[in-house]
Amino acid sequence: MIFDVFGTVVDWRTGVASYSRAFLEQRGFEIDWFAFADAWRGQYQPSMERIRSGGRGYVPLDLLHRENLDTIIPQFGLETLSEMDRNDLNHAWEHLPPWPDSVAGLNDLHDHAILAPCSNGSIALMARLKRFGALPWDAIVGAEIAQDYKPQAVAYLASCKALGCAPEGVMMVAAHNDDLHAARETGLMTAFIPRPSEHGINQKTDLTAESDWTIVASDMLDLAQQIGRL
Amino acid sequence: MIFDVFGTVVDWRTGVASYSRAFLEQRGFEIDWFAFADAWRGQYQPSMERIRSGGRGYVPLDLLHRENLDTIIPQFGLETLSEMDRNDLNHAWEHLPPWPDSVAGLNDLHDHAILAPCSNGSIALMARLKRFGALPWDAIVGAEIAQDYKPQAVAYLASCKALGCAPEGVMMVAAHNDDLHAARETGLMTAFIPRPSEHGINQKTDLTAESDWTIVASDMLDLAQQIGRL
Repeated sequence: MIFDVFGTVVDWRTGVASYSRAFLEQRGFEIDWFAFADAWRGQYQPSMERIRSGGRGYVPLDLLHRENLDTIIPQFGLETLSEMDRNDLNHAWEHLPPWPDSVAGLNDLHDHAILAPCSNGSIALMARLKRFGALPWDAIVGAEIAQDYKPQAVAYLASCKALGCAPEGVMMVAAHNDDLHAARETGLMTAFIPRPSEHGINQKTDLTAESDWTIVASDMLDLAQQIGRL
Repeated sequence: MIFDVFGTVVDWRTGVASYSRAFLEQRGFEIDWFAFADAWRGQYQPSMERIRSGGRGYVPLDLLHRENLDTIIPQFGLETLSEMDRNDLNHAWEHLPPWPDSVAGLNDLHDHAILAPCSNGSIALMARLKRFGALPWDAIVGAEIAQDYKPQAVAYLASCKALGCAPEGVMMVAAHNDDLHAARETGLMTAFIPRPSEHGINQKTDLTAESDWTIVASDMLDLAQQIGRL
């Protein structure tokens, strides 16, 4: 079983907002912390798109996060932040809390399957998130293994291959319908978990399963129960 | 901290002998199980050497193990083993017991550092050994990340890079002096742990530290104590 991480396993929005607040308040800044997290994440897809389209070679997401921070800094009046502070603030992405059901659900799932993140985050980032959140991964696969970003087919296929599994023997778990569409296209099984507050209380997307995924679960614990009954 | 695995963390000789015995006795074979494990492992370096020298592209160690099994089968009169049985027997390498001090020592070390295997084993193999032995790895690096085998410099350097660390901030832990020589050449810190029965009671090599490694420890628990005092 392979997992999307940002939004599916961890709450990036609360994590980035909290870390940024703790870091920047000490330096005298007072901004809308959730707006800051949303703006930073807002650069995520555009920054990967250049790589997916072949306009740029693969670089790890840590570098894209760092560049994206520079992009949004003027919007929040943070231009005086030093280079070193910007590098330190970039570690916000290594300090993201798991959703309340994630760790217990993953620990239950661990009895049934090999578990690995299939994230656009790098190996270095996934290793630190694993330690921060006590996530019971057996391996780390995803974008860095494939040297390209989801939803490119190679991101799923290279991940299955690295785990020594055929795609039809692997289930992709995500809170995002587009991630599952791409995984199904490459032959994987799919499981959807809604994360209706990933983007805050006014979230409009991915509130429900938009296709007949192999499994639709209410959260990670429910997914583990459903897998346990198979 | 990155770790050699076969011999340093797990007892491959006992593991392969035990698994092969359980598997092959059921099929009516009776051979010298340790001799069989030694012969299988004896093909390890030659099979990687073709890849290190550029004569063959990177293939994962699982495939080399499978080919090496075919090589030694005539020596042990196992020619009647079916293709499926040979594939199943190859899973012996996924069932290797940690040395008695390995798990407790690694759990102690986990408080101090990011831990990852830097093995010639594949990601798939390391994930299964992690599950079999409950090894507290945060990530998996090594040959598959580098697409080349230790002691090639790239195996260490690509591993450090994947962990987001400079080589001088990483310590390579091994029971083999040649592994540590190569790691030191590429700028890493080094730690030696003797495993005097890796090759059985008549072992002649790697009984002691043959250079002034950063740390020399008696076992993984002693290594954790020494690291904890730094």
